[in-house]
Amino acid sequence: MTDVPESHPRYVSLRMRDDIARGVEQGVTSPHGLIAHGRGEAFDYMIGETTQPFALSAIRSAAAMLLRASHPVISVNGNTAALVPAHLVSLSAACKAPLEVNIFHTSHERERAIERQLRDSGAEGVLLPSPDSTIDHIESNRKFVNPRGIAVADVVFVPLEDGDRCEALRKMDKEVITIDLNPMSRTSRLASVTIVDNVVRAMPLLLETIAELRSLGVPQLETLVSTYDNQTILDQAQQRLRKGG
Amino acid sequence: MTDVPESHPRYVSLRMRDDIARGVEQGVTSPHGLIAHGRGEAFDYMIGETTQPFALSAIRSAAAMLLRASHPVISVNGNTAALVPAHLVSLSAACKAPLEVNIFHTSHERERAIERQLRDSGAEGVLLPSPDSTIDHIESNRKFVNPRGIAVADVVFVPLEDGDRCEALRKMDKEVITIDLNPMSRTSRLASVTIVDNVVRAMPLLLETIAELRSLGVPQLETLVSTYDNQTILDQAQQRLRKGG
Repeated sequence: MTDVPESHPRYVSLRMRDDIARGVEQGVTSPHGLIAHGRGEAFDYMIGETTQPFALSAIRSAAAMLLRASHPVISVNGNTAALVPAHLVSLSAACKAPLEVNIFHTSHERERAIERQLRDSGAEGVLLPSPDSTIDHIESNRKFVNPRGIAVADVVFVPLEDGDRCEALRKMDKEVITIDLNPMSRTSRLASVTIVDNVVRAMPLLLETIAELRSLGVPQLETLVSTYDNQTILDQAQQRLRKGG
Repeated sequence: MTDVPESHPRYVSLRMRDDIARGVEQGVTSPHGLIAHGRGEAFDYMIGETTQPFALSAIRSAAAMLLRASHPVISVNGNTAALVPAHLVSLSAACKAPLEVNIFHTSHERERAIERQLRDSGAEGVLLPSPDSTIDHIESNRKFVNPRGIAVADVVFVPLEDGDRCEALRKMDKEVITIDLNPMSRTSRLASVTIVDNVVRAMPLLLETIAELRSLGVPQLETLVSTYDNQTILDQAQQRLRKGG
């Protein structure tokens, strides 16, 4: 699989599968994370495996939201750590947003493996959940957060997230940005900004857009955020899904 | 996850995830099998997570094809062994078709784990691939077959299969029956009969249909097979996929 040439039509998809399978070996990704990855593959196939206009609109709004945030935080799970660790580190630097490890199925070992993966990709500081700090409205391991991170964030970037988590953050009046290939998922519907795109395509575009919008003032950023309508974007994504690639 | 009540709207889906994750622990399922399972979940979601008319038509033709076969064989991989081991054993008995372990990523350990899983579910004999017997047109581990099984089969039932395998069997003029939730996959397009349905819903229905058609004579079975058109079935499945559940 690792011998697949870059010219292969399925190169990106096969490369991602390798990255995520290696994530399991390294203790970064959970078996349930692999299944979630497979779901993403199918939805990506259905939208044509390219970044669509609705994703570009969401990326623009997400970039503005991150730039005008007071305390943005990047929540990292096993799949994003396996697939785009270097991009997460770059995003953290670009937005002065700490990286915080947060996973669904409790495992301190896996939290540390994710932290290691991020540090190997250049992260200087990585926040871990604290047993003394919890958020309401959530039952799983994810209720534990870092008191310097998600607990005090106004904007949380949580790519490839589950619905419960997204809902809990929204109930705490935080703005939530997600990347999710399924426009019908609870996460997609609950987030403030949903980027319906493959994380490996969306992350470089998000970084480029942040660089491009960096010179804008707060009122202009605010306009980009306030004129964005997530439901319209999700409707467009669902139409595309049904129409086919 | 295992505590999810049967009344939960996602009970079957969550139960399957548990079965397949346990398959990994037991050495039956590969990490790539988990990703494939996730893809299936997404396509199942898109067709409404119910058995559709096009699947019922394919099941009827598949049952007739298995009943009128001279040497039917059931090819078993990690995902089917994890999800429907008892149904595979029942099908083997109902059609007098041997079970043959055949997996994509070479691992004798996993082959034996799958054999064990089938025996634990009541299988008396399980064929394993033989290093001395190969089929043409295929590069991977799957070219090794059992000389008393797939090598001499006229009909091969290969649920949740990959495209290369299906193509190689077709080139050897064998009839191939598959179960695949993606009607656009190479396997779906190359098979003689493609059941576009979730394997846990399709297997009990296939067993019921075999019991129902058992009293038919060969000419009647032949008519059921010859009047079936797989391309029409795939077109219907794809329309449903695009229309939504």
